[in-house]
Amino acid sequence: MTNKIITLTTDFETRDGYVGAMKGRILSICPKAQIHDLTHDIPPQDLLAAKVALQRSLREFNKPAVHIAVIDPGVGSSRKALAAETEAGFLVGPDNGIFSGVLEEFPPNRIFQLHEEGPCWKKHSSFDGLHLFSPVGAYLAQGGGIEEIGHPLDEWLRLDQEKAQPSPSGWMGKVLGFDRFGNALTNLPGRQAGPGARLKIRDRVLKGVAHFEEAKSLEPAAFLQNSDGMLEICVWQGSALEKLKLQSGDEVMLVEDPEPRISPAATKA
Amino acid sequence: MTNKIITLTTDFETRDGYVGAMKGRILSICPKAQIHDLTHDIPPQDLLAAKVALQRSLREFNKPAVHIAVIDPGVGSSRKALAAETEAGFLVGPDNGIFSGVLEEFPPNRIFQLHEEGPCWKKHSSFDGLHLFSPVGAYLAQGGGIEEIGHPLDEWLRLDQEKAQPSPSGWMGKVLGFDRFGNALTNLPGRQAGPGARLKIRDRVLKGVAHFEEAKSLEPAAFLQNSDGMLEICVWQGSALEKLKLQSGDEVMLVEDPEPRISPAATKA
Amino acid sequence: MTNKIITLTTDFETRDGYVGAMKGRILSICPKAQIHDLTHDIPPQDLLAAKVALQRSLREFNKPAVHIAVIDPGVGSSRKALAAETEAGFLVGPDNGIFSGVLEEFPPNRIFQLHEEGPCWKKHSSFDGLHLFSPVGAYLAQGGGIEEIGHPLDEWLRLDQEKAQPSPSGWMGKVLGFDRFGNALTNLPGRQAGPGARLKIRDRVLKGVAHFEEAKSLEPAAFLQNSDGMLEICVWQGSALEKLKLQSGDEVMLVEDPEPRISPAATKA
Repeated sequence: MTNKIITLTTDFETRDGYVGAMKGRILSICPKAQIHDLTHDIPPQDLLAAKVALQRSLREFNKPAVHIAVIDPGVGSSRKALAAETEAGFLVGPDNGIFSGVLEEFPPNRIFQLHEEGPCWKKHSSFDGLHLFSPVGAYLAQGGGIEEIGHPLDEWLRLDQEKAQPSPSGWMGKVLGFDRFGNALTNLPGRQAGPGARLKIRDRVLKGVAHFEEAKSLEPAAFLQNSDGMLEICVWQGSALEKLKLQSGDEVMLVEDPEPRISPAATKA
Repeated sequence: MTNKIITLTTDFETRDGYVGAMKGRILSICPKAQIHDLTHDIPPQDLLAAKVALQRSLREFNKPAVHIAVIDPGVGSSRKALAAETEAGFLVGPDNGIFSGVLEEFPPNRIFQLHEEGPCWKKHSSFDGLHLFSPVGAYLAQGGGIEEIGHPLDEWLRLDQEKAQPSPSGWMGKVLGFDRFGNALTNLPGRQAGPGARLKIRDRVLKGVAHFEEAKSLEPAAFLQNSDGMLEICVWQGSALEKLKLQSGDEVMLVEDPEPRISPAATKA
Repeated sequence: MTNKIITLTTDFETRDGYVGAMKGRILSICPKAQIHDLTHDIPPQDLLAAKVALQRSLREFNKPAVHIAVIDPGVGSSRKALAAETEAGFLVGPDNGIFSGVLEEFPPNRIFQLHEEGPCWKKHSSFDGLHLFSPVGAYLAQGGGIEEIGHPLDEWLRLDQEKAQPSPSGWMGKVLGFDRFGNALTNLPGRQAGPGARLKIRDRVLKGVAHFEEAKSLEPAAFLQNSDGMLEICVWQGSALEKLKLQSGDEVMLVEDPEPRISPAATKA
């Protein structure tokens, strides 16, 4: 028997009991569900943060896991609800772009707009997480056919983040946000950073490092390629966010070493 | 084989390792337990918040789930410890009112005061969560008989929240608290709100909406019926708590539309 | 079939999706894993806090649970990675002292330095939690032989906390930190506190209590023996941290009752 893996991603936090209610609803339909919390701490209604966290997490999963995500400011309105079958598992949630990163990386085999009512679910005015998405997810985990739960969807909402652009002086990008350590995530792809590259931000010129500890001797900060393949700005045992007083949207530029050394090896920070 | 579902609800947060210890204790007694975190973020020692979150979550569960809850300022004192069998599952925790909402909604088939010591548990001076409630919950999940673990309890502590009252000018109620989005939960039952109802709070008169997005054009806020059937005050993509500078205990009044329109349909916000 | 219990302890919080990625990686290798979050809220890079939380939690577990812990400021550097077999289960994580409390309490049957690359893992420059520790943990949970994954390790890093010391006037110790309630944990062993003992901190002299509720009538605070057997300073329904304006590192002294009463019984606070 395959495990019935269901993951949950919300911006509800847990203290109000809404996540607990979703777990109860899922287990009452699919008692053998293995529920895994991905996070309930997405910043309130932050669709972009949800998109990034979902893509980062879901790419590690396989079919037939079921992924329920509820960051849903449009609940109760005419926004659509979707279910998709991908190689990373089934996706269930609002059609508001939070899944668009996963769907770009794992184009759906099949994708459906959910019926507003089904054998064990019904669209709700304020809590589709409980009344629609949890039961639909549990139904899929139980082996229910995805073609029964809605009608084919041609198009889904995409949430795009600004991409870094080449310019005569280097790659121009932005700070997209900060992780819990205060590392600043940028939209600069790591593959653009040659061995002598420098990252400019707010009149600072930062050197690249291979890992965090190498940033120990670099003032005020450094940059490295993170596990998503993107460049991020880091401070050894500290927060780049606080130390450099950064903000989301700050401009960054990736340039070649402004003071090239004799040997390429010597330019390694 | 039925799944051995155990849920945990505490005000411990997780960082200190106390919740981890409870999980270890449970699994060492009942290795097949499926432990589900409901929340560990109940505000410290906030019995009312625990009562609300437990009722909201547990009503979605069925027997034979076991629900352990430890919000327990009286640990080590003479406060009783209880275990109850209800249609929402077994309840295990201190007799301090946190389960009283669930017990009102699901009157117990059987309810017991726990023995201070049993085959695998013993009352503790500062951490009954580990030494008493976790092992008792694991024992019940293993199929242990509830009648073995204590003696019948006649009465249990009830925690009552003030109820809304009718008055000549409308229903008078209060703000009970705020969810993580800053929505203000009131004790006004949704069924009292006719189609032209208005909610008065701090000299503001708010209109009702069917869902959050409808509040987009309503300044400064609106109200809707939440999934518990109660009225809550909301701000589109914002926090009613912050925008209206509300506090727990603020008075609210539900009144008929002060400026009635010609047709009832037209009064829908 | 034994349950395949895997626990996770990190300082990642959950919102960024890194913990979700670890769960996906584990489940893609060991689909029957029962993953239990111990905590993801260890303060950033706080090795001592991790050591304490791990020891408090893991002592409640048994073999063959697998415990993955990733508080890892040295990721990508030359710090070693380890796997150990103990009576509390397998330990997998960086060799930076976070497991040293558990290893002192449960000396390892076998302990290995992980190979940098294996059948399903590979050391990474910034996220060994995903690329090294999760797959190694999943491999062990699947029943993989620990002797295959590395070479024997003779010595591991120990993180020592200052111990309380006897002095002519009493036991001298320190405040080690605070739990989520604001109770101040000290390094004074509870067994040193006789029935008439007093705890001195910042010109305050505190009495001992048997449980929290007994502290009700004691101004400004009291102390008790916690479930780890250590003394902690508490305030009834409040925070010792805030009320006494304490800090980690504050000196504490355990003394005999400065004003002894006639009978020992009467000295009980």
